[in-house]
Amino acid sequence: MTGLRRVLVANRGEIAVRIVRACHTAGVEAVAVYSDADEHARWVRMADEALHIGRSSAQKSYLDVEGLLKAAKAAEVDAVHPGYGFLAENSGFARAVRDAGLVFIGPPPEAIDLMGDKATARRTAEAAGVPVVPGSGPCSDQSEAERAAAELGYPLLIKAAAGGGGRGIRPVRDAQELADVLPSAQAEAQSAFGDPTVYLERALPRARHVEVQVLADEHGGVRHLFERDCSVQRRRQKLIEEAPAPQLSEDVRRGLADAAVRLAEHVGYRNAGTVEFLVDEEEGFYFIEMNTRIQVEHPITEEVTGVDLVAEQLRISGGAPVSFDQDSVAVRGAAVELRINAEDPQRGFAPTPGEVTAFQLPGGPGVRFDTWIDVGDRVSPFYDSLLGKLVCWGADREQALARARQALREFHADGIATTAELHRRLLDEPELRHGPVHTTWLEQLLDG
Amino acid sequence: MTGLRRVLVANRGEIAVRIVRACHTAGVEAVAVYSDADEHARWVRMADEALHIGRSSAQKSYLDVEGLLKAAKAAEVDAVHPGYGFLAENSGFARAVRDAGLVFIGPPPEAIDLMGDKATARRTAEAAGVPVVPGSGPCSDQSEAERAAAELGYPLLIKAAAGGGGRGIRPVRDAQELADVLPSAQAEAQSAFGDPTVYLERALPRARHVEVQVLADEHGGVRHLFERDCSVQRRRQKLIEEAPAPQLSEDVRRGLADAAVRLAEHVGYRNAGTVEFLVDEEEGFYFIEMNTRIQVEHPITEEVTGVDLVAEQLRISGGAPVSFDQDSVAVRGAAVELRINAEDPQRGFAPTPGEVTAFQLPGGPGVRFDTWIDVGDRVSPFYDSLLGKLVCWGADREQALARARQALREFHADGIATTAELHRRLLDEPELRHGPVHTTWLEQLLDG
Repeated sequence: MTGLRRVLVANRGEIAVRIVRACHTAGVEAVAVYSDADEHARWVRMADEALHIGRSSAQKSYLDVEGLLKAAKAAEVDAVHPGYGFLAENSGFARAVRDAGLVFIGPPPEAIDLMGDKATARRTAEAAGVPVVPGSGPCSDQSEAERAAAELGYPLLIKAAAGGGGRGIRPVRDAQELADVLPSAQAEAQSAFGDPTVYLERALPRARHVEVQVLADEHGGVRHLFERDCSVQRRRQKLIEEAPAPQLSEDVRRGLADAAVRLAEHVGYRNAGTVEFLVDEEEGFYFIEMNTRIQVEHPITEEVTGVDLVAEQLRISGGAPVSFDQDSVAVRGAAVELRINAEDPQRGFAPTPGEVTAFQLPGGPGVRFDTWIDVGDRVSPFYDSLLGKLVCWGADREQALARARQALREFHADGIATTAELHRRLLDEPELRHGPVHTTWLEQLLDG
Repeated sequence: MTGLRRVLVANRGEIAVRIVRACHTAGVEAVAVYSDADEHARWVRMADEALHIGRSSAQKSYLDVEGLLKAAKAAEVDAVHPGYGFLAENSGFARAVRDAGLVFIGPPPEAIDLMGDKATARRTAEAAGVPVVPGSGPCSDQSEAERAAAELGYPLLIKAAAGGGGRGIRPVRDAQELADVLPSAQAEAQSAFGDPTVYLERALPRARHVEVQVLADEHGGVRHLFERDCSVQRRRQKLIEEAPAPQLSEDVRRGLADAAVRLAEHVGYRNAGTVEFLVDEEEGFYFIEMNTRIQVEHPITEEVTGVDLVAEQLRISGGAPVSFDQDSVAVRGAAVELRINAEDPQRGFAPTPGEVTAFQLPGGPGVRFDTWIDVGDRVSPFYDSLLGKLVCWGADREQALARARQALREFHADGIATTAELHRRLLDEPELRHGPVHTTWLEQLLDG
């Protein structure tokens, strides 16, 4: 079915489970890797072979390029799937995989580089005719930043040029705050990304986050799979996502999709990627960044389009074209994803590592729960806090949300605090019920 | 959302769970009932209220019309959902519910009666212009049966006029076998259905079982939701079902749907129902019976059409029209349902009651598992053996079957034998992979 025979799953948690399932469904063998902490984890048991790659610390295991390549060689795979997070957007890893004669299941390293530097990505988008949030070029010192800020107007965001995934971003309301915050923003950019360069962007606090899923193959085929609204965020971490974006005009929906395809074509993109935009209250839209990997929230697109995104990644990496024409794909109904994290919203979303002593899954029509947890598993402090993703589809948004409410009634975890209770509360909020909300809505609600 | 406020779920097992979910999703309260054996069962815990109705024996609980009506009164419900099996096709129960001033979530008792007597149902179908399997009128004695048989030709089936659900059917190959079997068939019909009347039908051993889902409302709206192929049967009990029916010509697909709608209109049908047909090798199709209730295999229709059938039942019973127009509903992809029963295929499918000590659910895109089982539950010898239904959707039949294979790899039960291992084997059978198979395929395979 695909040109691949055996894939190394260079990740952990729910996305590792997801990739093993996709491999098996496509008739491809899956090889898992695991750290000390993950020895007995579900994806390890599901895979056709599993290799220990190191200590529990991610640096010693899931971020260890050498160790992963050694595992790939030992397991005799022909391709590596990086999942999301860890090394998924590390072009050095993608190059090392390629140089080892293996297929990296993702875009070419050049595309990762082009989109990985956010200032370069902005310029590239502009060159492709895709509107960007009004912003500055790279600012290397205080006076340069002040001049740019005066031109743009406040409020603004200071962003690390090498940042991404919502990290390295500081909001500033006026010139005084810019002066106060800039040095620490530069220092933070240096320590987090190894590069102190920052730039400024107009802040759009009442805009929505809307992103477009694209798939591109080696035969010049670039397709979009419509959009997702991911405006329910806390500190730029998404908590609830939905597809399609509610109450978006058809013109803007089409405009976003066209812009995403244009950018992907412009940079010679391959495999799955996501082009992220802000959509303001007047429905103006602005490119913010491109994520060059499969995303956490990919299942809602699968639910409304019927396209298996990880299966498409495998197909494309094996040299096949995307499996569908643009005209043959359509959105049916609506889907919502709720991230169930091992975090305690009552205590500032502090991670809650520990043993999961009960884990009751919801079910029924339209309900999907992508998880890696089995009763008795320990949630480790070494990794992210995502326990699972509750994905609910409905014939319309109202039914999708009603099913999510019922699924949350059924879901039950013991041993650790989770974000499930917060989701129960959020789904009853009138603003969310009626939709859409903007990207600062959740923080304002939690503050209130 | 619906005109109902509070529903008594007059059933148990997975369909009780299904109905509670549908009620909650529609904003309707659900009241469960339970026998001694089911005191701690999942649907009991999920419901808003639960009432004990009697001993473990079904006669003393789920078949006890008086007890159920008393529970309905005590719980102050405004409607009763009978599920499938038990009293679902008992017109006396439907009448008793109506006479108590409550809504019976199903067709009017008159329609149940009309379709419940299989000989009457045949005549009704003919009157509606729906082709039936060549057969006889009621045969009350040996000579009448012999005359009819000579006219029809062998092989034949002896069927109980009051039968249904695959019960009370005896195949005969020639006149000698007819003479031998008839007395016991009449005795069986008397003891099983309280009526010794039988009739004869031409046997079509190489035909497929294809059934059409219909929904009809109180406003004259009758819709179909396309067909299901349920040819994988053992002793007329379905084991695997799929939608759409594979490799059926568009003409026949449309012809079946039209015939089903015509019959439903002819009998003034209301609510959800299924019109069952045999389709022979030349794609001639013949009505066999109508099931006047929600069916076990309803989820595959939900998966391909996106319509929630139990939600539609609630809507219709509350007086609303069916939620969709015929033109707006279409089949997307393909779905397959595998029945996971507490039966041991190695020992003649003997029921395997006992405690379930492990129960690992499969998951991922397109995978739905409708079950009532939690680890530690006891499967009782008092009721049917259905543990759960593995329902897999795919963009095409091949993907649906591949996902089912992977889901079966993930599924795991301990403590009792199940049909899961048989399903693993069946999904690899070339005839099933390529489809379609006929209704005697599985029995021949199991014999071989």
